[in-house]
Amino acid sequence: MTEPEEHALPLSRLSLNLGTLGPGRPLPEIVACCRRYGIATVSPWRYNYEDMGAAAGARMFRESGLSVNTVCRVAGFGEADSPPAWRAAIDEGRQILDEAATLGAASVTFIGGGLPAHSNDLRAARARVQDGIAALLGEAQARHVDLAVEPLHPMVAADRGCISSLEQAIALCIGPGTGVVVDCYNSWWDPQLERAISAAAGMILAFQVSDWRVPTTDLALDRGLMGDGIIDLRRLRLLAEAAGFTGCVEVEVLSRRLWSRDLDALVAEIVARFREHC
Amino acid sequence: MTEPEEHALPLSRLSLNLGTLGPGRPLPEIVACCRRYGIATVSPWRYNYEDMGAAAGARMFRESGLSVNTVCRVAGFGEADSPPAWRAAIDEGRQILDEAATLGAASVTFIGGGLPAHSNDLRAARARVQDGIAALLGEAQARHVDLAVEPLHPMVAADRGCISSLEQAIALCIGPGTGVVVDCYNSWWDPQLERAISAAAGMILAFQVSDWRVPTTDLALDRGLMGDGIIDLRRLRLLAEAAGFTGCVEVEVLSRRLWSRDLDALVAEIVARFREHC
Repeated sequence: MTEPEEHALPLSRLSLNLGTLGPGRPLPEIVACCRRYGIATVSPWRYNYEDMGAAAGARMFRESGLSVNTVCRVAGFGEADSPPAWRAAIDEGRQILDEAATLGAASVTFIGGGLPAHSNDLRAARARVQDGIAALLGEAQARHVDLAVEPLHPMVAADRGCISSLEQAIALCIGPGTGVVVDCYNSWWDPQLERAISAAAGMILAFQVSDWRVPTTDLALDRGLMGDGIIDLRRLRLLAEAAGFTGCVEVEVLSRRLWSRDLDALVAEIVARFREHC
Repeated sequence: MTEPEEHALPLSRLSLNLGTLGPGRPLPEIVACCRRYGIATVSPWRYNYEDMGAAAGARMFRESGLSVNTVCRVAGFGEADSPPAWRAAIDEGRQILDEAATLGAASVTFIGGGLPAHSNDLRAARARVQDGIAALLGEAQARHVDLAVEPLHPMVAADRGCISSLEQAIALCIGPGTGVVVDCYNSWWDPQLERAISAAAGMILAFQVSDWRVPTTDLALDRGLMGDGIIDLRRLRLLAEAAGFTGCVEVEVLSRRLWSRDLDALVAEIVARFREHC
């Protein structure tokens, strides 16, 4: 495979996943800070807008000139091994789709969920995740919001999301209204990643960056800022672009260390790291 | 795929990987304890015999009637991005092969190693791991010791071993003298695991069990005893047997919690868990 050519990435291609800033920060402060640093696109988690409601959140983003990329995130199907749990997963998925439509997001990320407590039946959980996509697809299409199927790192397969490789995510896509997320942190180790990115041509709905720290001390919340670890982010971005991806490069650095930092200093560093390492 | 039939596993099929007991326990105590609980096969780490030397260790195992399954473990190639580091990896690999031959082990586990410090070039590290297998194969064959290529969990790809899937391990095998390790802890999440186990028919040199705890709090040393987690160990064992595997089921539970436990109580529990969950 020939290596794709490098080119610099303008700040307009940056999307800031608000999970990077963490819970507990008021949305007006986040929005003002994004504007101060020239960020034009964000991806909220539900905790970012649930106090004020999606409509007020949408108004706040719109009035600040911020676009919404994707909303995080739909799960709960893997664990749903009873009819009430299944109905709850459907209801929550539908609600997130409603909110995404209100926010003007093009997609919701779909991580599917993990295993029920005390279960060792991974195949059944994965089958439920597949069924969850089928069950939500009509709801998603009706709202013009895509389901962005996201493989998570295998280390969180049991308790967060049991879609573990990009190849598996691609196989779960069932036509218009479905696509995949390439999250470099979740997938960098995958021996089949290059092949899978090529196979995902035309289906990549989101491309997310953060870095793998050595050592890593927590399975969920110890991601590094771009440049703090060992992932060749630029190469993966170029591979995604070679597969036709032209969207935003979304910074999603889930880390307790970052969550406690001063907001302006953190966003300034994110922008600097984006310019240098993506 | 039809499900393989279940059958009970006799204690003669148990191999105890001594990494389960941890460093710091004198080998004579370990050997005596294994015999008390009817364990006939063990797999040492280098720290188990390095004080006394491999020859004395071999004598101790032999006089106690213990067979040695595999010796852990060959690494260092992924990191070896300079000629001196490469020579050191070759020398260490050769020495472990010598020790394995002395101990009467059928194989050494080959995890290959991770990335050099400050490198983000995963492909180069993987190429070195592949070259390391080729470089050691003649040495291994001369000693009648196989290289058992072991995929590690992707969460330790950067710092321990960058062979991350069974499919990748199979592709690294280059004929007689090479084969693979199926370690349930490292590979349970793999969407292609069933297919890869079938493809490994005739090449499975070792089959290892432990359990994935929810939550998991450490990336290397928080494994659970069989039954403490969410891996369907019996099913994976039956799949390996359907692929022709007839060797020992090796208990390798790397966990700081276990290392501090009373030796007799720990080995007794290992035997009980083996009977119940494998």
